[in-house]
Amino acid sequence: MTPLRIGLVGLGNVGGAVWRQLRTQARLLERRSGRPIVIRRVSSRSPRRLEELGISKELWSPEWSSLTSDPQLDVIVEVIGGIEEAKKIVESALHNGKHVVTANKALLATHGQALFELASRQRRHVLFEASVAGGIPLIKALREGLVANRILSIHGILNGTCNYVLSRMKERAVEYHEALTEAKRLGFAEADERLDVEGHDAAHKAVILTALAYGFWPSLENVYREGIEAIQLEDLCYAERFGYELKLLAIIKGHPDGQVEVRVHPTLLPKRHILASVNGPYNAICVQGDVVGETLFYGPGAGGNPTASAILSDLAELARASSDEAYWERIWREDHGSVRLKPMEDILSRYYLRLTVEDRPGVLAQIASVFAHHHIGISAVIQPEGHGGARVPLLVLLHDAQERAFRSAKKVIEGLPVVEPPAISIRVEDISG
Amino acid sequence: MTPLRIGLVGLGNVGGAVWRQLRTQARLLERRSGRPIVIRRVSSRSPRRLEELGISKELWSPEWSSLTSDPQLDVIVEVIGGIEEAKKIVESALHNGKHVVTANKALLATHGQALFELASRQRRHVLFEASVAGGIPLIKALREGLVANRILSIHGILNGTCNYVLSRMKERAVEYHEALTEAKRLGFAEADERLDVEGHDAAHKAVILTALAYGFWPSLENVYREGIEAIQLEDLCYAERFGYELKLLAIIKGHPDGQVEVRVHPTLLPKRHILASVNGPYNAICVQGDVVGETLFYGPGAGGNPTASAILSDLAELARASSDEAYWERIWREDHGSVRLKPMEDILSRYYLRLTVEDRPGVLAQIASVFAHHHIGISAVIQPEGHGGARVPLLVLLHDAQERAFRSAKKVIEGLPVVEPPAISIRVEDISG
Repeated sequence: MTPLRIGLVGLGNVGGAVWRQLRTQARLLERRSGRPIVIRRVSSRSPRRLEELGISKELWSPEWSSLTSDPQLDVIVEVIGGIEEAKKIVESALHNGKHVVTANKALLATHGQALFELASRQRRHVLFEASVAGGIPLIKALREGLVANRILSIHGILNGTCNYVLSRMKERAVEYHEALTEAKRLGFAEADERLDVEGHDAAHKAVILTALAYGFWPSLENVYREGIEAIQLEDLCYAERFGYELKLLAIIKGHPDGQVEVRVHPTLLPKRHILASVNGPYNAICVQGDVVGETLFYGPGAGGNPTASAILSDLAELARASSDEAYWERIWREDHGSVRLKPMEDILSRYYLRLTVEDRPGVLAQIASVFAHHHIGISAVIQPEGHGGARVPLLVLLHDAQERAFRSAKKVIEGLPVVEPPAISIRVEDISG
Repeated sequence: MTPLRIGLVGLGNVGGAVWRQLRTQARLLERRSGRPIVIRRVSSRSPRRLEELGISKELWSPEWSSLTSDPQLDVIVEVIGGIEEAKKIVESALHNGKHVVTANKALLATHGQALFELASRQRRHVLFEASVAGGIPLIKALREGLVANRILSIHGILNGTCNYVLSRMKERAVEYHEALTEAKRLGFAEADERLDVEGHDAAHKAVILTALAYGFWPSLENVYREGIEAIQLEDLCYAERFGYELKLLAIIKGHPDGQVEVRVHPTLLPKRHILASVNGPYNAICVQGDVVGETLFYGPGAGGNPTASAILSDLAELARASSDEAYWERIWREDHGSVRLKPMEDILSRYYLRLTVEDRPGVLAQIASVFAHHHIGISAVIQPEGHGGARVPLLVLLHDAQERAFRSAKKVIEGLPVVEPPAISIRVEDISG
């Protein structure tokens, strides 16, 4: 049988795992795919990883362009990360008639639409199972397993670093910076953690999932994004008293009027929902389909081997003979009507609010009247005991409110003489279709 | 485009949902599959459901054989349930050159091997996404999403009725029969509950998953099976004190020597494992792959619409043009070496044991010496306070022991004069690859 011939661009953590696993699982993949899948050439800036990985120097080239232009290759696997150079690699591969497999969420979130249009013109595939939720076969589940469903909503824990940090804060009762330091020490966070903890990485993945579910690529800068840097242990503990757990969530929801809300922020989830039980460096994605109801997919969202597992599944898909060349074209061309991003100020959400207030009668009445004036209902209030200072915390849980109204009410409340700013607010999500 | 022409055999709960959803989602499925998927004929014993479902009587036939032999049909969807007649339908469809889509776990667990061999000879597909875990796209995940993995183990909550009953027992602090009565009233259990609560249904699904993961069909009567009928509230509560949650679990584990253990029984799971958080009538399956690590798939395991979602995904797969006709043949023919069922007496498991003992010194020493004699380690002992009778409970948690040794030790302990039989024992599983 003719082998599927791979050019591997990038020999970092993921590239190394792809090289190793494609060798370890070679026989298994050949049996299951019907033909061998073989890495014929590799490219990386320096040859220093070759020996460690046991790659013959003859396969190596410092220039990726010699791989993307090589007529002896069928597929380019792009795992260098970053955006601009990766874009050139993918474009060059497609122009030269090759399929592409990539794990690069930043690239797809930024240039996905243009790249898939190019792939369609070239009649080649860009597969990207590894770009969202690492080893979890989520893309395939959305496109094939749930093919009979309109997607009503997606709620995802899409960043393992953030989930690890939040889990540890609660487990060990430590503040954010201590948990982050531990995460770095154990390799669950990068030296430069900003891409993760500020929510950029989760936002990249949310853009890709939005495109898959609603056929529309929101521009990254318009996606509402809040990270976990400001989360305080105190709020995790108070949330617990209301029956909630705090997670960094990507929320994607289609509305019947064609608007889609896409947002990434710390979110309080009911403890009884299974997503609230996802701890440590894991990812989990809850998908509501109009036929199936609620499904959830859980697993390792990052790491060399889990990412390699997803990349190899894409390669197996390319290796399997398929006469359905138009498959991805249909997916990207599907007519979803006029879909557009719902402005953040228009979205509805419940809210948790922690205020620092003067400890005297009448304070709650003042605050309640501000919410009443903004037509926002209060669902619960807790005044924790045992503070005994002049200033005490006051916790308020709100019913659904429009973001615009909430922001306005919050601003008024922060300006009350009996309230000491800032007011801490966290959105609450009672997941359902 | 030529439509994919379906004959639907069975108009019960699932058949009705397939009919309805295939109409509701017709445009969406056509766009995504590249061609229309149309039910051309239906068959059911009596025409009484036709009006309710809005099916024209012209499509109906009381004889399934007029569908399986109709040259104008491409696929037979079999959703009548039961074994012997369903087997004839599938065989007849395959002999007449049609593909088959089925949700019938009992049929596949009993005759799967023969039916897939027949399909292979006929060069037709038998697709069965709906047969395990209802709407969760688990079969596709195992075969395609995790294609690069050897499956190390599968731990599944595969029966929603059992999971609902166990969840309610704990939530409402009621005994088994009260929870079951409620489950029946709310439609989460059948009038005849035995197929579910005795573990037969979960065992059917375990056989199918074993075949997929290890290419070997264990005979149903050799699969160890224990139901939930004997579970007492007391044990759920004591388990909680050890940090465990009780679930009916299907456990499938491959061993390097080619033995596979396949068993269905009540199992104590560590509360921190996400599978322990699966409550209510849901299914969840934890899959350990040698590359990806741990993944979990969660969703509705039964019900008309979730099952229809899975059946429609199989139909979409058949509708997509594929030149890879040998795909399923490769899967079923994959050489897994000489795989065989591991005898139940040889498996290793941890155990929870609840004894009723005389309340006097020396009792624990006698029991501990029996375990020592059988080379079984004790990991924890709890003597709950506040009983104050002549007979008190004694709870013992054991380290890994061979089933044979454990049974023998248990028998000796039940015979001790200081112990009042029966001893209640439940297996404990600390899930890991």
